[in-house]
Order: sequence, then structure tokens, then C-alpha cells
Amino acid sequence: MAGSAEGDGAPRGRSIGELQGAIDAWIAENGGYWPPLSLLARLTEETGEVAREYNHRFGAKQKKRSELEAEVPGEDRLGMELADVLFIVLCMANEQGVDLDASFDAMMNKLKIRDAGRFRTR
Amino acid sequence: MAGSAEGDGAPRGRSIGELQGAIDAWIAENGGYWPPLSLLARLTEETGEVAREYNHRFGAKQKKRSELEAEVPGEDRLGMELADVLFIVLCMANEQGVDLDASFDAMMNKLKIRDAGRFRTR
Amino acid sequence: MAGSAEGDGAPRGRSIGELQGAIDAWIAENGGYWPPLSLLARLTEETGEVAREYNHRFGAKQKKRSELEAEVPGEDRLGMELADVLFIVLCMANEQGVDLDASFDAMMNKLKIRDAGRFRTR
Amino acid sequence: MAGSAEGDGAPRGRSIGELQGAIDAWIAENGGYWPPLSLLARLTEETGEVAREYNHRFGAKQKKRSELEAEVPGEDRLGMELADVLFIVLCMANEQGVDLDASFDAMMNKLKIRDAGRFRTR
Repeated sequence: MAGSAEGDGAPRGRSIGELQGAIDAWIAENGGYWPPLSLLARLTEETGEVAREYNHRFGAKQKKRSELEAEVPGEDRLGMELADVLFIVLCMANEQGVDLDASFDAMMNKLKIRDAGRFRTR
Repeated sequence: MAGSAEGDGAPRGRSIGELQGAIDAWIAENGGYWPPLSLLARLTEETGEVAREYNHRFGAKQKKRSELEAEVPGEDRLGMELADVLFIVLCMANEQGVDLDASFDAMMNKLKIRDAGRFRTR
Repeated sequence: MAGSAEGDGAPRGRSIGELQGAIDAWIAENGGYWPPLSLLARLTEETGEVAREYNHRFGAKQKKRSELEAEVPGEDRLGMELADVLFIVLCMANEQGVDLDASFDAMMNKLKIRDAGRFRTR
Repeated sequence: MAGSAEGDGAPRGRSIGELQGAIDAWIAENGGYWPPLSLLARLTEETGEVAREYNHRFGAKQKKRSELEAEVPGEDRLGMELADVLFIVLCMANEQGVDLDASFDAMMNKLKIRDAGRFRTR
């Protein structure tokens, strides 16, 4: 799988905390964080864009001509849309002072204990 | 800010790639990934749960008595909801073979070049 | 199909405008409309609940025991979730002074002219 | 308020059932309904477009130049986006055989009984 760790101790790219820091620096230079409900609206918008891309690829929706022409050859549209959601989630965490790495651990622990066996295909 | 890097070379927690790997291992033991449109539906659901939490805190919605009683003291609900979105985004990336760390870089580069000055408060 | 008109002149239930009016009256007695971004957050939440219900029925997600126990026998959950979205859309239209019946016509005209042939299954 | 009923018995535009029927006829000529999870993905996308429009108007997001240029003068963008959500909700109801008018009543009754006093501004 792309991006999986192999445990040999080599550098593995940036941590969640480092990404949060990189965004923090960029946002500081670009006017500061939006207020919470605006960030939420942006998350909703980006989730909608993932939905459009998924429907084009795995669902029933055909692309409009203008959408096809706007595509950049070689660009990983799906990856970009997922990264847009990641970006806004990191912004929301930063704006609220959430340590997303710690929250991710707490979430995984909850998942392992409470929901074991539920997150599977039929 | 919580989670920001300080640049002293010390360990910084896991990378996006390592989180993708951790999820991959967990999912492999729990029945495999859902198909794409089911993962998308889950992303929509989790985004909705972030919306509920944000509306409770920053918007106009009052919690129902049953919701208040269901709260776990000391739990960071907002962080957990954001982590749920992160989890499902990582699942979607894994299921599609997306290297989210690379996509994140591509997204940030695009943001810096094309959208500079747009992501700011009024 | 449920709810289709047969053109015999008999009463057909309430119009969109009447539903907007009924909601307006109810909201007036219950504290007034939320501000726009709170209504939007609620739309996001309700869309997420439709997603959960659809994933349970047509996707890969299994219901938790607590969810199964909370189901009311004979209740049309799916219809109720769609009605929740309809309700919030009508609230948003009211709060903004939108005549949704007119907007619906404008949207259908646009659909017929511009997008003919696109909204179909593969 | 736009669209509210005045109770004088005059025609009030089409009912929810008639709109469901109009869509049913149009869809029948255009290839049939999408499968449920594709309709859901479309609902997510349309909700995202409402979010973008709301963020532009009531939140912190500035429009891109290309978005400003694509605007049609005099068009009620916000009404159109809400109508898009209404359209897809009606499609989903039709595809599942839901009588949305009845579901709307059931939802309103539930709201009046259980949630009285909750749907108000702080």
C-alpha cells in the first residue's frame, strides 16, 4: 500500500503535528483562521467535492464537458480532494487547539475496544 | 499551538504514512475496506457529526437532554469528531492507493501559488 | 410511484409555499430562525444522518446494537431522514426570503436545457 | 415572507406529491434513477454547494475571480442551490417509494411533541 510504514527507522515524512505546524505558519501569513462555522462550511464544501469525484469514478454521474476540459492531465484529482479535506480538518484542529495526533490515538483505542468487528464489509 | 513542530529533531509522533499503515493493518484484521461509495457515505456521516458538535458549541443548536447525558466527562468530543473524519479520509486514501502525504504537498503547493490571499478572514 | 399526481383536480396535499408557511408559523412560535451558518450546519448534520441510514441499507455499514434497539417499529426512518433535510431546506429558504417554488422551476428549466442526458444511469 | 400561504383558498402552486410526479416523469425520459449510493453522493455534493454559497455570503470565504465571472446577473444563486438539494431529496424519495408529504407530517408531529423549545436561537 502507498504510504505504509515498514519500520526500518528511515524518515517517514512529516507527522500530523508537523503538518499542523506547517499549516499554522502558512495561515499566520495569510490572515489567520476563519471562525469555526466558516471552517465547518468549508469542510462541508470539500466533502461535497470528494463526493462529486467519487460519483464520477464509482457512481452514476457523468462529467460535464466543462469539467472534463478543466482536468489537468496527470494530476491525482482524487488524492487532491482527499488532501483538501485533510487540510481543512487540520485547520479546524489548529483553530481549536486540538492535538489531532492525541485525538487520533483516543479514537483508535475507542474503535478497537467498542466497535471491533463492526467496521467490515458484509 | 498544540501539535506544532519545534524543529529540534526530536521524534514528532507518527507520519501520515505511518497512520495510513496503522489503519491498513487494523482494517486487514477487521474484514477489509468498504467499497468506495460506502466509505464516502461514512465521510458524509462523520462530517455531519462534526457539524452537530460545532453547532452545539459555536452555533444556535441546543443539546437534547439525552445528548448531554451521553457525554463522557473529560473526553474531547470535538477532537474525537475531527479524528473520525481524519480516520475515514485515511481509509479512503488507503482503499484507493493514494499517498496522502504526497497529495498533501501537491495541495499545499497549489494553495500557495494559486490561492494566495484568498484563505483569510475578511 | 408514491405521491405522484394523477391530474384529476382533487386536493393534492400542500404546496411548497404552504409548507414554507407552516414552518414559518411554527418557527415564529419557537424563537425564530437560526442564523444562516447555524442552519447550514444543521443541513450538514441532517445530510449526514441520511448518509448513515443509506449506508445501513445500501452500503457496507452494520448497525450498532444501540442503534438497532433505538429503532421504532413501523417508523419509516428513511422517509423521516429525507423529511428532516426537506425541513431544513425550507427553513433556509424562509430565513433568506427565497420562494423555493419559483427556484425549483428555474432549476428544472436549467436542468432540461443544459443538462439533458446527463442525469441518467450509465 | 416569500412563499407563505395566506389561507384564502387560491391555488398555491404544486404540492410535494406533484413535484415528485414531475420529477418522476422527467427522470423516466432521462434514463431512470441512479442507484441509492449515487443519489446520496449527489446529495452530499449539492449540500457542499450550498455550503460554498453560504460561506461566500455569510462566512469568511472570498470568491475566486473565476467564480465571480461565472455568475449570471440576476440569478438567485442561493435559491438555485437550495432547489438543487430539494430536487435530489425528491429523487431519493421517489427512488425509494417514499411519500415525502406524509413523511413531512410525521416529522413535524415528532418535532412538535418531542423537540418543542429546542429549535430556537439562544
